[in-house]
Amino acid sequence: MINKKRFIAVIGGAEPSPREAKLAEEVGRELAIKGAILVCGGLGGVMEAACKGAQSESGVTIGILPGESRQAANPYVQIPIVTAIGYARNLAVVKSAQAVIAIGGSYGTLSEISHALQSGIPVIGLNTWSLSRNGKQDNSIILAQNPTEAVNKALSLATN
Amino acid sequence: MINKKRFIAVIGGAEPSPREAKLAEEVGRELAIKGAILVCGGLGGVMEAACKGAQSESGVTIGILPGESRQAANPYVQIPIVTAIGYARNLAVVKSAQAVIAIGGSYGTLSEISHALQSGIPVIGLNTWSLSRNGKQDNSIILAQNPTEAVNKALSLATN
Amino acid sequence: MINKKRFIAVIGGAEPSPREAKLAEEVGRELAIKGAILVCGGLGGVMEAACKGAQSESGVTIGILPGESRQAANPYVQIPIVTAIGYARNLAVVKSAQAVIAIGGSYGTLSEISHALQSGIPVIGLNTWSLSRNGKQDNSIILAQNPTEAVNKALSLATN
Amino acid sequence: MINKKRFIAVIGGAEPSPREAKLAEEVGRELAIKGAILVCGGLGGVMEAACKGAQSESGVTIGILPGESRQAANPYVQIPIVTAIGYARNLAVVKSAQAVIAIGGSYGTLSEISHALQSGIPVIGLNTWSLSRNGKQDNSIILAQNPTEAVNKALSLATN
Repeated sequence: MINKKRFIAVIGGAEPSPREAKLAEEVGRELAIKGAILVCGGLGGVMEAACKGAQSESGVTIGILPGESRQAANPYVQIPIVTAIGYARNLAVVKSAQAVIAIGGSYGTLSEISHALQSGIPVIGLNTWSLSRNGKQDNSIILAQNPTEAVNKALSLATN
Repeated sequence: MINKKRFIAVIGGAEPSPREAKLAEEVGRELAIKGAILVCGGLGGVMEAACKGAQSESGVTIGILPGESRQAANPYVQIPIVTAIGYARNLAVVKSAQAVIAIGGSYGTLSEISHALQSGIPVIGLNTWSLSRNGKQDNSIILAQNPTEAVNKALSLATN
Repeated sequence: MINKKRFIAVIGGAEPSPREAKLAEEVGRELAIKGAILVCGGLGGVMEAACKGAQSESGVTIGILPGESRQAANPYVQIPIVTAIGYARNLAVVKSAQAVIAIGGSYGTLSEISHALQSGIPVIGLNTWSLSRNGKQDNSIILAQNPTEAVNKALSLATN
Repeated sequence: MINKKRFIAVIGGAEPSPREAKLAEEVGRELAIKGAILVCGGLGGVMEAACKGAQSESGVTIGILPGESRQAANPYVQIPIVTAIGYARNLAVVKSAQAVIAIGGSYGTLSEISHALQSGIPVIGLNTWSLSRNGKQDNSIILAQNPTEAVNKALSLATN
């Protein structure tokens, strides 16, 4: 049954480096192999690469879109959710997941990381942002060295 | 493939009459039999009855929740989307569907009917609201006499 | 002090009839004369006419915009709120008011009426929608015959 | 006229240190003295201190609230906007401003900083987050040493 499965978000930029895109595809593939459902923002770049990887292993892919039309979803999204609320949907992307894997990314990704940490949803980072507050390092983003480690950490922390 | 399937929203109140609950369950069942994916607001009442019907025929059920937690989803939701935007999520429920079936319902349902009509998404009505503007009847809600007719009309109009 | 003032929303279509535009301007003027703050969706048509009327009497006008830019506000909006959440902002328009005056309008206006009624916020109607549910008239929209009556009813009901 | 004025957001945590609260109050006061309108999230902590400062100099204060009720606004908010979309309103707080001053803050503040930077809205920081991406310092947050400098920088950059 789908509703016993774990929901993991993969977040990252629409214009990743080739290396980030490869990481995302591998993360998507691993999530599918391990039976998790992939949640993402539904657009291109890291989101598309992750969905492509998941679909190559028959995984389920959900795209929570900012705009007004399902047509904006990347071709590997099976379940497009049309929020029509623009980038305020970033909150819904992370809230719909039990853990988040961040790959690279720009300020949109950083807003998703922030919303996840504010909500107590674990964030695993691959080549992404690091944070300090008032000059003091914040270690809330859990580092991973590679896609397998990222997926394993995400799945083990996806308990809510 | 899921993404060739049609997405149909079932909307209606959290406190339906027994007859409305029965209509909703039958609509859910028919949608699943005909291979459509059920979208709803994820909570109780009409939403739960429709999901129950769909699940009894192995259909896929999506619940687009208003609150902060997947735990609020009814037990027949397989794919909970946690929007965390309250009743502003009503817009996302209808936007994520290619046609909408409204069963009974109160003002929340009416807001969903309105958002659908504003977006050009067909609305099929079973014992639900009727509208007039400036004293002139508005016939945008397509009437159906029973669940089978509602589902057939929804599927034939779900073309966007 | 502003925060002792009453906040009244004026809702209605972007393409009103000349008569509706005139009603809206008169409503805006009366609200300003009576010291209320005008809340609206910030765009053209009924919203602009109401703001124009309010401004002609030195009233305060708030426009809660759907898009990404304050530039979209009509020229009579003094306080543009840029929600960036599209038509999901319809909920914010009515929630930010203590009573709502609906003038004409299409499905967007109907979604606002619905959200207001769902939230227990009084709705006064001038030439607008009327509703029935399951063949039974719903009289929740309080009818007014002219702008003065609409404003008086809105102000007397704006108690929350 | 209000609509020629500049709108500046002050963001920061609900539980600031005494020093941060003092900075926020001083920022609010300076904004009011210089004729800017203060936008904030409407709740306590930094938001309340900034509103208190602004009100002490007869400034206008706008609170863009996450919840369902104007009653949640701090007592120095003159114009409460009730979004009812929870923390997705963080986007509206920064989008409604022409520049943002961040004081301290936790992950909610970080989400607001991120949304502002993504939207090209200048962010001035007082004792707040600093960012690096992929091990490389990101200097998009403009540092200020004190409230006067923060306000001056915000006003000079508030051009959109």
